[in-house]
Amino acid sequence: MITIGVPAEGKDEPRIGVTPESVKRLTKNGAEVLISSGAGLRSHFSDEQYKEAGAKIAKSDAEAVKAADIVLTVRRPDISLAKSMKKGALLIGMLEPFGDPKGLDALAKTGVNLFAMELMPRITRAQVMDVLSSQSNLAGYKAVVDAAATFGRALPMMMTAAGTVPAAKVFIMGAGVAGLQAIATARRLGAIVTATDVRPAAKEQVESLGAKFVAVEDDEFKEAETAGGYAKEMSAAYKKKQADLISDHVKNQDIIVTTALIPGRPAPVLLTKAQVESMKPGSVIVDMAVERGGNVEVAKPGEIAEHKGVTIMGKFNLPGEVPVNASSLYAKNLVSFIEVMLDKEKGDLALDWEDEVIKGTAIAKDGGIVNEMIAGNLKSG
Amino acid sequence: MITIGVPAEGKDEPRIGVTPESVKRLTKNGAEVLISSGAGLRSHFSDEQYKEAGAKIAKSDAEAVKAADIVLTVRRPDISLAKSMKKGALLIGMLEPFGDPKGLDALAKTGVNLFAMELMPRITRAQVMDVLSSQSNLAGYKAVVDAAATFGRALPMMMTAAGTVPAAKVFIMGAGVAGLQAIATARRLGAIVTATDVRPAAKEQVESLGAKFVAVEDDEFKEAETAGGYAKEMSAAYKKKQADLISDHVKNQDIIVTTALIPGRPAPVLLTKAQVESMKPGSVIVDMAVERGGNVEVAKPGEIAEHKGVTIMGKFNLPGEVPVNASSLYAKNLVSFIEVMLDKEKGDLALDWEDEVIKGTAIAKDGGIVNEMIAGNLKSG
Repeated sequence: MITIGVPAEGKDEPRIGVTPESVKRLTKNGAEVLISSGAGLRSHFSDEQYKEAGAKIAKSDAEAVKAADIVLTVRRPDISLAKSMKKGALLIGMLEPFGDPKGLDALAKTGVNLFAMELMPRITRAQVMDVLSSQSNLAGYKAVVDAAATFGRALPMMMTAAGTVPAAKVFIMGAGVAGLQAIATARRLGAIVTATDVRPAAKEQVESLGAKFVAVEDDEFKEAETAGGYAKEMSAAYKKKQADLISDHVKNQDIIVTTALIPGRPAPVLLTKAQVESMKPGSVIVDMAVERGGNVEVAKPGEIAEHKGVTIMGKFNLPGEVPVNASSLYAKNLVSFIEVMLDKEKGDLALDWEDEVIKGTAIAKDGGIVNEMIAGNLKSG
Repeated sequence: MITIGVPAEGKDEPRIGVTPESVKRLTKNGAEVLISSGAGLRSHFSDEQYKEAGAKIAKSDAEAVKAADIVLTVRRPDISLAKSMKKGALLIGMLEPFGDPKGLDALAKTGVNLFAMELMPRITRAQVMDVLSSQSNLAGYKAVVDAAATFGRALPMMMTAAGTVPAAKVFIMGAGVAGLQAIATARRLGAIVTATDVRPAAKEQVESLGAKFVAVEDDEFKEAETAGGYAKEMSAAYKKKQADLISDHVKNQDIIVTTALIPGRPAPVLLTKAQVESMKPGSVIVDMAVERGGNVEVAKPGEIAEHKGVTIMGKFNLPGEVPVNASSLYAKNLVSFIEVMLDKEKGDLALDWEDEVIKGTAIAKDGGIVNEMIAGNLKSG
C-alpha cells in the first residue's frame, strides 16, 4: 500500500492535483490519499467531498507530505516542501523543467525523485497522461471567452429589427491543441474564424472545424502539406510571402489569439508592434504564450494592456481560470500516470525506470538530475 | 433643413446616439449633424470618421446643442445641457421616464420638448425604433458571455483524451428579448439550457431555440399556453406548484440569468436568498434587473458580489459593454424615429403630435409634462 500526499498550492494557483473523483480511483488502487485541509477549495472541492471519496485531511502541508510515497502538486513547490518529504519519495507535478535550473537542482539534491508532467512523451499510450494537452485545451476555450467578454461588440451575427449586427472576425495563430479549441469556441460563438500554423498539415484540422486556413498556397506549400507533420522547413522566399499575407490579414481582424510555444525555448514573436498598430481601435488580442516571453511584441506579462486602442490580454494561467475542469483533467492525467508506477496486485510502487513514460518525465533521481537537457541547462547557465 | 446636435455622454455611458453610418442617413435626409469632439470614442468612432460621414465636429457639448433643432442623447442629460438648447427644440434619448420625476419636471420646464425612447409603443411599425429590444438583445448576449468568463468551468461538453468535461447547466429566468438572446448564446456555447417565464406562451419560443421550458404543465398551464400572451393570471395553487418546481430546479444549475422587468415598477424577486444558498459553490448568477431593484435578493447593484460561494453579477449597463453594436443599433432606432418627424420633401421638422409613436414617446412639451403616468408620479411623489 502506498500513501499519496497533496499539499495546498501557492496563492497564484487555483488548481489542485486530486479531485474527489480521482481520490476514489486512487483508493481503489489501494492507495491512501492525504490532502492538506482546504487545498481544493479554489477548485470548489471541499474537505467533506474529499473525505466522502475516501481521503484523509491533513492539518498542514508538511503533515500531508511527510509520510507520502508520492506527492502530487500542480506547480513546482518550494524547497521546504521537498525537505518535509521522505528521501526517495516521488514528487510529481508540472515542475517547469526548463525554468530556473538551479532551483531544480536544489530540489533534486533533497533526495526526492522528481517527475515533470510537461515532459510526457507524445505517444498514443501516454495521451491520457498528457497534461499539456488537457490544460491547453481549456486555455484555448478560456482565451476566446475572455476575448469575447472584453470585445466591445458581439461575436455572432445578429439579425434584429433595427438592423444586422455583423459577425466578428477572429484569427487564431497556431493550430495546436489550444488553437484548435480556440477555433472551435470562436466558431460556437458565431464568429468568422481564420487560422494559421507553420505546419501546412494543420490546414485539414483547421478546416474540419469550419475555419479558413490562411497561407500562401503555392507549389511549395502543397508539397509540404502532403508531406505532413513537422518535417519540412519552408524556404526563405515562402516565409516572406506568408509573412506579407499574414500582415495583410491581421489588419482586418477583430480578435486575434496567439498560441505558439516551443518547448524549452522562448515563445516566437508572431505579431510585431507594427502589426498590432495596423488593427482597428477596439480590437482584442490574447497572447497565450505570455508566460514564455509572449507571441505579441507589445504584450505585458500578467497584464491586460492597451496599445493604441488595441487591448492585449496577457493573463498568466488561463487553465487556472477554469479550475474545476482543469483540476479534474489534471488529476485524471496524474492517476493514469501513477497507475503505470504501481504493482497492480500488491498495490506497491514498482517503477520500471526504462518505461518510456517514466524515463521521459523523470528529471531527478537519488539526489541528481537525470534529464540530459536540464543537466545541459545547468552547465551552461 | 434641420440641425441635429449630439453632446458627449457622462462617464458611465460609453454608448453614443449617432454613428458615422447614421450620420450618412441623417444628412441624406437633409439634416446637418454636429457632434461634440470625442463623443464617439468610447464606441470606437473617431471625429475623423464622423467628419468623413458628413458631420461637423463641435468643440463642446454646449456648442453641439445650442443651435440644434433636435438633440440626441443616450441617457437623460444634466439640466445645464437643456438650458444650452433652444426653446422648443427636441431632446430625444433614453430619458428614464419613471426615474426622478422632479428632475424630469425641471428638465421639462426649460422649454425643451422631451421624448423618451423607452416609451416607444410596441407596435409593428415601431419595431425599428424599439430601443428596449435593441439594447436588451445585446445585454442578453453579454450576460451569458460574462457568466462564461466568470464561471470556473467550461460551458460546452468536451471530449478529451483525459476524460469528458461535462456541459454546464444554464437557466434563464424570463424569456423576453434579453432572455431569448441569453438562451441562444448559452446554447451556442454548448450549455444545457432551460428557461422559464410567467407567460406560458413563451414555451414555444424557448423550445424553438433548443432550450427546455421549466413549468408545471398541468391543465391550467395548457389552457393558458394556448390562450397566449400576457392575458391570464395563474391561480395561487398553480403559482405555488411552479415556485416549488423552480426551487428544485435552481439547486442543480451552474449559471442563472434573471431578466424580469416590469415597466415603471421595481423588478420582481425571482431568486430568494435561500434559493441562492441552495446552489453549488462556484455557481454564477447574472441579475440583469439590478438597476431596477434586482431579481436576486442578495444581488448588489453595480457590483460583482459573492454570497456563500455563489457569484452574483450585478453590473449596470450591460449594453454599454458592447458599445459598438449598442450605439449602432440605438443610432438606427433614433434615425428611424427622426424620419417620422420630418417633412421628407422640405427636410423640415413636421411633427404630427397625434402620431402614435410621437404621442407615445413625448413626455414634455412647451414647458410641461404631457405624459399622464409621469404627471401622476409627480403628484404622488
